[in-house]
Amino acid sequence: MQDLDFMNEAIKLALKGSVYTHPNPRVGCVITKDNTIIGKGYHKSFGSNHAEVNAVKYCLNKFGKNKGVDLLRGSTAYITLEPCSIFSKTPPCTDTILKYEIKNIFCASLDPNPAINGRGVRVLRKAGLNVKVGLLKKEAVKINEEFFFRHNKGRPFVRMKVAQSIDGKIALANGDSKWISSKESRSDVQNLRAEVDAILVGSGTVLKDNPRLNVRNSNKYKAINKQPKKIILGKIDYSTLSGLKLFKEDSENIIFSNDDFVSNHSKVIFKKLKKQNSLKQLLKELTKYEINSLLIEGGSQVFTSFIEENIVDELIVYLSPKILGNSSKNATEVISPKTLNNAKNFKILKSMTVGDDIKIIMRRK
Amino acid sequence: MQDLDFMNEAIKLALKGSVYTHPNPRVGCVITKDNTIIGKGYHKSFGSNHAEVNAVKYCLNKFGKNKGVDLLRGSTAYITLEPCSIFSKTPPCTDTILKYEIKNIFCASLDPNPAINGRGVRVLRKAGLNVKVGLLKKEAVKINEEFFFRHNKGRPFVRMKVAQSIDGKIALANGDSKWISSKESRSDVQNLRAEVDAILVGSGTVLKDNPRLNVRNSNKYKAINKQPKKIILGKIDYSTLSGLKLFKEDSENIIFSNDDFVSNHSKVIFKKLKKQNSLKQLLKELTKYEINSLLIEGGSQVFTSFIEENIVDELIVYLSPKILGNSSKNATEVISPKTLNNAKNFKILKSMTVGDDIKIIMRRK
Repeated sequence: MQDLDFMNEAIKLALKGSVYTHPNPRVGCVITKDNTIIGKGYHKSFGSNHAEVNAVKYCLNKFGKNKGVDLLRGSTAYITLEPCSIFSKTPPCTDTILKYEIKNIFCASLDPNPAINGRGVRVLRKAGLNVKVGLLKKEAVKINEEFFFRHNKGRPFVRMKVAQSIDGKIALANGDSKWISSKESRSDVQNLRAEVDAILVGSGTVLKDNPRLNVRNSNKYKAINKQPKKIILGKIDYSTLSGLKLFKEDSENIIFSNDDFVSNHSKVIFKKLKKQNSLKQLLKELTKYEINSLLIEGGSQVFTSFIEENIVDELIVYLSPKILGNSSKNATEVISPKTLNNAKNFKILKSMTVGDDIKIIMRRK
Repeated sequence: MQDLDFMNEAIKLALKGSVYTHPNPRVGCVITKDNTIIGKGYHKSFGSNHAEVNAVKYCLNKFGKNKGVDLLRGSTAYITLEPCSIFSKTPPCTDTILKYEIKNIFCASLDPNPAINGRGVRVLRKAGLNVKVGLLKKEAVKINEEFFFRHNKGRPFVRMKVAQSIDGKIALANGDSKWISSKESRSDVQNLRAEVDAILVGSGTVLKDNPRLNVRNSNKYKAINKQPKKIILGKIDYSTLSGLKLFKEDSENIIFSNDDFVSNHSKVIFKKLKKQNSLKQLLKELTKYEINSLLIEGGSQVFTSFIEENIVDELIVYLSPKILGNSSKNATEVISPKTLNNAKNFKILKSMTVGDDIKIIMRRK
């Protein structure tokens, strides 16, 4: 086996971490000696051991402490991300690497987190280790796309999910939207929610539908260790807060509005937007809460603002083969362009049948 | 090989006829003797020999006249459709079958044409042949779906093609629609046109866009022996007729409106609708012109009428990943239902990527 194969193996391990590592990145680690794997591990869930530590533990368990320590001395580690050099929920991984005298380090990419970015590598090089950065970088970055996005762009990766009819409607004029999309599509939305750090809706939608906005029935992710944060954009009267279902859940919740809030609330953090519905300020604040990925779920006004300001990175449409007609509610009320060339334009990433509907995933063009 | 295999072979042959047989059905024929194929043929194009005649000719050519005649005597024919018993562009196929003393006949289905329906079979049975009807009926009917549809329902099979944005728009407010869909989608429309007998548009679209509505660049069908008929719904002033591109083509053209036309026109047949835009009368008239399949191409008003009256059998949407905004033109202006259960509803047959777009084919639910 070659370096490339070992790093590929580390990437496969990283993927096992799935959504449970959020907002941490998924990381995998393979340790070899004489071209044979002696240790492997991955970051399983937020707050638990990092991949490198798990790989070392695997080795010590498999070979016993004495032989394990011997094997690790002078070994080679393939890590999908730069080892951390800081104390967070766990001690620095660089300490573990140095303690067990691992000699060669391949990391696929640097950690984009400014608290680490290059520091982990520097610590190890200073201690005399051979550190190579960049093996399968593209592949390794892809598995933590949103984590990199947040650190590189200074805002969360923004997904927008719209369940609409062929004619672009999301509800009848009376507000009825139960249900435009099929049961299978609604169940698929549970997986979408499980994959993001936060869900954003407008206050109008909260007051009209009183939604739970939680992960309750994800086929892909049986046990979600924590619910996505709920973000509300727009004013909600203090008196109505206790009746809202989305605060029943054990999640962090933030309300952004232009109001001065006078009281605190056990379930909600209040944030004042300086300008009317300033999405830039909102996204900046969310970045501080380590939100890598944000899912916009409605309603029409919120959809429109995000599209208008060109901050939809991924648009996911569940298209139901219905026609709801001219007095039904439009998904968006975007101002029309003067020419077709200036229309808001996405590119289709993929599409698939989901129940009676088609799910179309589009990306910023 | 078994009866089923031979009929399957006949169906495969029939499919070679493709659009060139329109408005005739596609028919294939296999003739066997002692379980070996001695003749095969299909109906190649409108007005030319029928499948049975071609299969007999194949046999005579292959084995020479004397041996061919010998082989055909007492043979078995597998025909995807009941042999015709009438003179049309060619003599009755039953005559050929009787002349060459073919003994056993399997036909997949009766001909739905009331001029034949069962008569072909009766003629042959009367003459002492063994005739079995129904082998692979479903498969054989499917390859001439629209031909059967016209005869069974008394109207053409109606397809509607819409090139629209995600938000259900077909043009900017100024009418600009060049181009919402990608080059590949527009090229795909050429294949759609090649597959239908007639194309219908509203007079508004004709006057605004002055389209050609012809098959000019079909990848699938290199040589279209005749252009689909053009059907216009709505008034067009006599004085503007000569300037219209769609009459430059060598096709039959019909204008349906509520007007009394005083003059004739070399390129156009005028039909008066008794009631305002009576689609039922229109479709009944088109049936007389042997139009099995009709493609509705716009504009919004025509789309709306056909959807409102529930006479869209297949809805084909080329969905471009653009958002055209709130002042752009809606594909349809259908009156909204009172409840979601009463919305116009289709079922998705299939969908595929075409260039930058998604093509979604839906059927009446």
